Amino acid sequence: MADVYERSLKLHEEHHGKLAVRSKVRVENKEDLSLAYTPGVAQPCREIHKDAETIYRYTAKGNLVAVVTDGSAVLGLGNIGAKAALPVMEGKAILFKEFADIDAFPICLDTQDSEEIIRTVKYLAPTFGGINLEDISAPRCFEIERRLRKELDIPVFHDDQHGTAIVVCAGILNALRLVKKELSTARFVINGAGSAGISIATLLLELGARDIIMVDRAGILCEGEEWMNPAQKQMAEKTNQEHLRGSLADAMKQRDIFIGVSAPNIVSAEMVATMNSDAIVFAMANPTPEILPQEAKKGGARVVATGRSDFPNQINNVLVFPGIFRGALDARADDITEEMKLAAARAIAAIVTDEELCEDYIIPDAFNKQVVQAVARAVMEAARR
Amino acid sequence: MADVYERSLKLHEEHHGKLAVRSKVRVENKEDLSLAYTPGVAQPCREIHKDAETIYRYTAKGNLVAVVTDGSAVLGLGNIGAKAALPVMEGKAILFKEFADIDAFPICLDTQDSEEIIRTVKYLAPTFGGINLEDISAPRCFEIERRLRKELDIPVFHDDQHGTAIVVCAGILNALRLVKKELSTARFVINGAGSAGISIATLLLELGARDIIMVDRAGILCEGEEWMNPAQKQMAEKTNQEHLRGSLADAMKQRDIFIGVSAPNIVSAEMVATMNSDAIVFAMANPTPEILPQEAKKGGARVVATGRSDFPNQINNVLVFPGIFRGALDARADDITEEMKLAAARAIAAIVTDEELCEDYIIPDAFNKQVVQAVARAVMEAARR
Repeated sequence: MADVYERSLKLHEEHHGKLAVRSKVRVENKEDLSLAYTPGVAQPCREIHKDAETIYRYTAKGNLVAVVTDGSAVLGLGNIGAKAALPVMEGKAILFKEFADIDAFPICLDTQDSEEIIRTVKYLAPTFGGINLEDISAPRCFEIERRLRKELDIPVFHDDQHGTAIVVCAGILNALRLVKKELSTARFVINGAGSAGISIATLLLELGARDIIMVDRAGILCEGEEWMNPAQKQMAEKTNQEHLRGSLADAMKQRDIFIGVSAPNIVSAEMVATMNSDAIVFAMANPTPEILPQEAKKGGARVVATGRSDFPNQINNVLVFPGIFRGALDARADDITEEMKLAAARAIAAIVTDEELCEDYIIPDAFNKQVVQAVARAVMEAARR
Repeated sequence: MADVYERSLKLHEEHHGKLAVRSKVRVENKEDLSLAYTPGVAQPCREIHKDAETIYRYTAKGNLVAVVTDGSAVLGLGNIGAKAALPVMEGKAILFKEFADIDAFPICLDTQDSEEIIRTVKYLAPTFGGINLEDISAPRCFEIERRLRKELDIPVFHDDQHGTAIVVCAGILNALRLVKKELSTARFVINGAGSAGISIATLLLELGARDIIMVDRAGILCEGEEWMNPAQKQMAEKTNQEHLRGSLADAMKQRDIFIGVSAPNIVSAEMVATMNSDAIVFAMANPTPEILPQEAKKGGARVVATGRSDFPNQINNVLVFPGIFRGALDARADDITEEMKLAAARAIAAIVTDEELCEDYIIPDAFNKQVVQAVARAVMEAARR
């Protein structure tokens, strides 16, 4: 890992970051200048002033996404602030470009006040066709996203929540297909009740899952528990119908699926062994998973997925956000709805054919070129319905 | 002109605007992904978190400029709002790129409240190495720029004020060189006491001019006049030592230099004829100047400049802002000082040699490749002094 860090640092220094701007038109002589700038540019301005919708025709807005953070929950690094978050946001922006030809731009905000963030993003919105919220800590991210979705007429998407939820659901659909269990009767345990965990549970319920329990540091989320934050209280009402209480070890017993978005090394082979047969383990803590694949297998897991590229079945958001935004922008959607998210999850799962599906291949590779197109198409169709 | 407008509209539609983002690094396989994004990207984040200054080493910040507007005073179009201003801001951004290889990005703010604009730009600042304010109406632009210069640690530059002032001063220096008059004794009249006119007067005074009168719609700026706004009152104290009152026609009598940043066709050949011999006329209203060059010559003007590319002596900001920001960014200046502006004006003037200098060539062409380098060098040296 030290080597990756060192080489990454060198790459960033060599290029002074990763992102640049380019011009789509030539400006080589006075004629060019008179069309791209004054006096000619007055005409698209007048047209947009007359009819605001033509901004999509005459500017780059329709292909521009802001990657917005306040630096409060960056990768595994925590609250490192706006400046230190910039390398991640530049990285995200170039992934948008490389995977979906979307022009994305990093916006690192020097405030962690939710109302100020909401207000600022609303002020910025005219330039952009979509807003990707990134690495904003829970529970603030819920309110920020909810308000911006309501108050803006362009799609707003908190990738840490929904991107993760969508790709996890895609993997779960295929893992269940492999072990021949039904979503509606499968018993889930999700460890980590922050933004990712809550979003995964929500999307699983929408997909048709019925039996989910969630666990956080203090134990199983259960109606009546005092330690839960408002978002967790809401989830406790929708999950854990049996009102189970207890630890993660208690929660894992006789479950079909473990989904971890929590902390390294907190699950043992012995705990996996208490799960049902053909257990499915998604251990997605980064860079060190809740349990290493070989350990989970030792405990009897049949399918194991992680967030890492050096193990099989990498659960990677890059399968989701490029296609989600490509589809939403191309459909000129004003929101990314639950239907669009479900369509994206199903489209990713469907890339893996019955013939290809096996323990070590439940989810397409990050560089599978079919994915972005399939997701974009599914999202666009869902948007149009 | 109709033809330029039509072709400009077509150009904008064909490309969906003018600006795109590009990646400076490859992301073609898992190895690339691990360096540009997770897990490798954590290392530049950690370094910046430890030492904020390293953001210039590991990100694109040092070459990124925000082109910020509220759409309140766009070109000659007036207050057309944030969305309709986007084609101009994209245009400005690509000029930064084409002329100085600076990555500039349009930020069109959906508010015209000065305090909100100041606050928003401060929140945005972590991503950017400099802020170019554009097309914000006077007198709001003065306060917004003043506050942002004071409160931010990156250069902030309102191009409509200072870019214009610098290129006008460069042209004036050469026009005076040609007609062999001295700046300190030359008699100026500036018509138009908005942001551009005030900024031109200020820079001329700093260059060494002593006898300036300014005129606005209501007449000559003079201490004691009731109609002046606060910025104009300040200028009245620094100009018009003789306490002249009256109209533009009165103001032009026995002046050496007329500078117009006002309205079309408001100066006649007869008015120019009342000026001193070897009169210099800068008629920069756009697209129709205060007086056409052939009319000004008829009235006896020796040197005429306009904002138009189809007449000689085009006074064009594009000679200024690319080099100003190139120099400021390369020097890692935290402000663009008066010394840097004066150095830029002198550097532009100096491009035209004594041998080349003539009535029809007092200012370099917009596409003269020497300019950006000369300005950047002069600005960098001034910043380091």
